[in-house]
Amino acid sequence: MQETQVVLVLWFIGIIAEAMTGALAAGKQKMDLFGVVIVGCATAIGGGTLRDIMLGNYPLIWVENWHYLVAIIVASLLTVVIAPLMHYLAKLFLTIDALGLAVFSVIGTQKTLLLGFSPPVAIVMGVITGVFGGVIRDILCNQMPLIFRKELYGIVSIVTACCYVILQTTGTAPWISLGVSLFLGFSLRMLAIRFCWSVPTFHYSADEK
Amino acid sequence: MQETQVVLVLWFIGIIAEAMTGALAAGKQKMDLFGVVIVGCATAIGGGTLRDIMLGNYPLIWVENWHYLVAIIVASLLTVVIAPLMHYLAKLFLTIDALGLAVFSVIGTQKTLLLGFSPPVAIVMGVITGVFGGVIRDILCNQMPLIFRKELYGIVSIVTACCYVILQTTGTAPWISLGVSLFLGFSLRMLAIRFCWSVPTFHYSADEK
Amino acid sequence: MQETQVVLVLWFIGIIAEAMTGALAAGKQKMDLFGVVIVGCATAIGGGTLRDIMLGNYPLIWVENWHYLVAIIVASLLTVVIAPLMHYLAKLFLTIDALGLAVFSVIGTQKTLLLGFSPPVAIVMGVITGVFGGVIRDILCNQMPLIFRKELYGIVSIVTACCYVILQTTGTAPWISLGVSLFLGFSLRMLAIRFCWSVPTFHYSADEK
Repeated sequence: MQETQVVLVLWFIGIIAEAMTGALAAGKQKMDLFGVVIVGCATAIGGGTLRDIMLGNYPLIWVENWHYLVAIIVASLLTVVIAPLMHYLAKLFLTIDALGLAVFSVIGTQKTLLLGFSPPVAIVMGVITGVFGGVIRDILCNQMPLIFRKELYGIVSIVTACCYVILQTTGTAPWISLGVSLFLGFSLRMLAIRFCWSVPTFHYSADEK
Repeated sequence: MQETQVVLVLWFIGIIAEAMTGALAAGKQKMDLFGVVIVGCATAIGGGTLRDIMLGNYPLIWVENWHYLVAIIVASLLTVVIAPLMHYLAKLFLTIDALGLAVFSVIGTQKTLLLGFSPPVAIVMGVITGVFGGVIRDILCNQMPLIFRKELYGIVSIVTACCYVILQTTGTAPWISLGVSLFLGFSLRMLAIRFCWSVPTFHYSADEK
Repeated sequence: MQETQVVLVLWFIGIIAEAMTGALAAGKQKMDLFGVVIVGCATAIGGGTLRDIMLGNYPLIWVENWHYLVAIIVASLLTVVIAPLMHYLAKLFLTIDALGLAVFSVIGTQKTLLLGFSPPVAIVMGVITGVFGGVIRDILCNQMPLIFRKELYGIVSIVTACCYVILQTTGTAPWISLGVSLFLGFSLRMLAIRFCWSVPTFHYSADEK
């Protein structure tokens, strides 16, 4: 079926982009190549793995189909090679990362709905799929998770997942639900980067406790 | 059944209190509202989620009943609003947190016993339920887990879980097991705060390795 | 069966050694005894637990047989007592740790193959079993995982797991597969420590993103 194939291609682009952000983050910490590969893998498949473990949905995608892991490992190592070029590719890279965020959020939501869970749970799982790869990456690099401070990253994931759920539950054709949610999420992220939109932050300091 | 309802109410107070400690910790790191909600949720349900994943006990509570998640998200956001008042509420807050610790430890132990696992495993799961929400909170905030250094936090959880297991396996009425364990855990924690009781620490420094 | 018993003894030595590295790491962070025990346990059984959760392989070993947990807790606390002697035991300790790494990698691989998963998945799970206890230890201690920077730690795990898989799939007798992989992994690690072999590191610094 054609729709499924488009999603698969987008998802594949997404995991490759995520693996590359992982490898670059590892490079910033001066890790060795083993660390680069582990952080690349954890970033690319961490969100989806956490979702499936929380849903008890076995076997995990990469356990069933290990070829994805090989692609992620190759992408992580290739990132080391092309790192000097990243300076020129920065905009392309941010674009692919934005696409990955939208795709992961939609796919996480879709999968959870197909497994028969309720729409609110599907939204939560969409967000976990979309953002937790990055959270795990930052924990492995001993950094405060970037997405808890970055322009509209998490919110984009929430909006994308909600949009997909609303369209699906109101009987919209799958193609349209998918296309509209992806377009909305991707545009919102790109606009947020362009205009530095961000969510209010919460500053709290206390001596008690 | 009345006993179950009392436990449910106490558990609910516990997750709200934990969500608030999570939101405050996020505020200390100057996270945005998305980060506040994620850390609030992870603190409130992280311990129980880890326990159920380790036991293979699906579906997870919040996957089956997503209304709890809504309550936790609201509590996290409300914490941002009432943060300026936290200064005056500090003692109330520590009291609720102590209650939450005792309740989580007892409920984690009880659930594991009811699933048919052995008493020692039930104690371990009680402690995981009691303290790992806080551990996950501190990891997400890139801090050394507080409970590994704080006055009698983990020990309170161990004592509470052991007390419940001993009373249950010696055929005490459920009401009494529950009440005595909760009272013991809560009192011990309050006394530890009041008198600054703590566990010996282990200092180790070495150049080797 | 004698082969299984040898593996069990080696595995037991491995978890004790890992518990001790966890306890020492906790001591470097000046944790209290509760923290020492938690970090010791997480280091000793974290890798195997993560593997079994990812494979959906329940019940977990320590849930089924809680006596292992008691041994790990005792080993963690004993480490506090004998810490002043660690200075003299450093070489013995590194040797046992190297043995543990090789044993964990082989056992993780072997178990995954026996559960019917493919050889590449078995290698990944061998590496997770071998190194993720240490990764979890370092996250709990709020440190950048040591193994992402240390001499040949992860690579030893990969080589050991690959060696075992190749020997097993080419019909070598179990005894020989086991012995050769263990010997290879152990020797490689000891040589890497002796001659300071290491994997190239990846340095990346960027202002973009």
